[in-house]
Amino acid sequence: MSGTLYGLGVGPGDPELITLKALRVLERAPVIAYPAPETGDSLARAIAAPHIPAGRDEIVIRTPMVPGRFPAHDVYDKYADEIAGHLAAGRDVAVLCEGDPFLYGSFMYLFARLSETHPATVVPGVSSLGACAAAAGVPLVSRNQILTVLPGPLPEDELAARIEASPAVAVMKVGRHLDKIRRVVDRLGLTSTAHYVEHATMDGQRVMPLAEVNGDGAPYFSMVLIRHAEGEAGS
Amino acid sequence: MSGTLYGLGVGPGDPELITLKALRVLERAPVIAYPAPETGDSLARAIAAPHIPAGRDEIVIRTPMVPGRFPAHDVYDKYADEIAGHLAAGRDVAVLCEGDPFLYGSFMYLFARLSETHPATVVPGVSSLGACAAAAGVPLVSRNQILTVLPGPLPEDELAARIEASPAVAVMKVGRHLDKIRRVVDRLGLTSTAHYVEHATMDGQRVMPLAEVNGDGAPYFSMVLIRHAEGEAGS
Repeated sequence: MSGTLYGLGVGPGDPELITLKALRVLERAPVIAYPAPETGDSLARAIAAPHIPAGRDEIVIRTPMVPGRFPAHDVYDKYADEIAGHLAAGRDVAVLCEGDPFLYGSFMYLFARLSETHPATVVPGVSSLGACAAAAGVPLVSRNQILTVLPGPLPEDELAARIEASPAVAVMKVGRHLDKIRRVVDRLGLTSTAHYVEHATMDGQRVMPLAEVNGDGAPYFSMVLIRHAEGEAGS
Repeated sequence: MSGTLYGLGVGPGDPELITLKALRVLERAPVIAYPAPETGDSLARAIAAPHIPAGRDEIVIRTPMVPGRFPAHDVYDKYADEIAGHLAAGRDVAVLCEGDPFLYGSFMYLFARLSETHPATVVPGVSSLGACAAAAGVPLVSRNQILTVLPGPLPEDELAARIEASPAVAVMKVGRHLDKIRRVVDRLGLTSTAHYVEHATMDGQRVMPLAEVNGDGAPYFSMVLIRHAEGEAGS
């Protein structure tokens, strides 16, 4: 009997923001896997660390993090093969995912390769969207407002057009795009309604008005929240 | 010493999708509050029910649910006053919120009235966005794609323009707008890429291609997920 592939959302950073369901799966799965950069530690594993029992088989999914590029097919083919071996032997494999597995998560590449041939379950997690809004004390959207989620690497003109067209915006993956994003928000006259959040719910969380952010770079895990109609949530 | 106001995301429906943090707050707060329709039960309380200790003070925040309208100011003024009384007496108040408190949550109206004068903490929760995507087995967004979250009550032409302009779309609050949404998606030639999810992670969860949905109405808690570039996640 085949094991089950689990995509486990472990939440945005605070280990306490894992769900009971993810915890239950994590405590039972004989094999856990998680993404990591080519060298260095896995954030997903660090988030889940307090909950990982000793003595589990661990698969470190190392993928090159080249700005503006995405991992090649063969990297995920290789790890899918390795995971398929465990599943064929009847062992469940829990893949740890920062935030939510299906919101920009690399788990989807494994899911696409394995879910048609193996039992697969996705356990949704707390995403950085809600976590950043909570940290900033700023609602994402209310009533019948539109929310647009934009990746920071988008070209400047596209960012500007999309931000202008949406009453509520979350720009993710800010990183080295901070300067560009700040310029766009400024040009649109929205700086006074924009918040910056870095490492939400983690050690080193920083929250401030975008206007007060210094420097021209930010961590990958940072976000800019923009609302056109400030204060509407209070009405 | 003032008590703390907590906005607790209790997740999308499955009681196991609550976080350890929300659970910890819930187990200690002497007063819990939750939204409910004018008559009938509270969904937020039903989700959290297995975790609510006996003997807590409970505040039922009853608000009229008139389609297309939002509760009047004075309703929230009244409940904010009641909650402020508990906070002033040093009692923590945990407000239960379906999904995530700051993604279309009514908690924000209490937060706006109380957070400047009282300690307030928002505990993010698993939103229906991730839950519906997980249930459907369809990633929300990958790589540097844009995600647009649209409320179903938007006018037909605006829905059409927004869906056409975004590679990945989640239409929330489908309810009685199902027919209109189906018509729009069809007109854009996107029906074959659209999924319908109802009551994600709850008893009675239903997942199907939008093309197979019968009838002209849906529950309020239903969603339509649309991706222009089907299969891209597998590449």
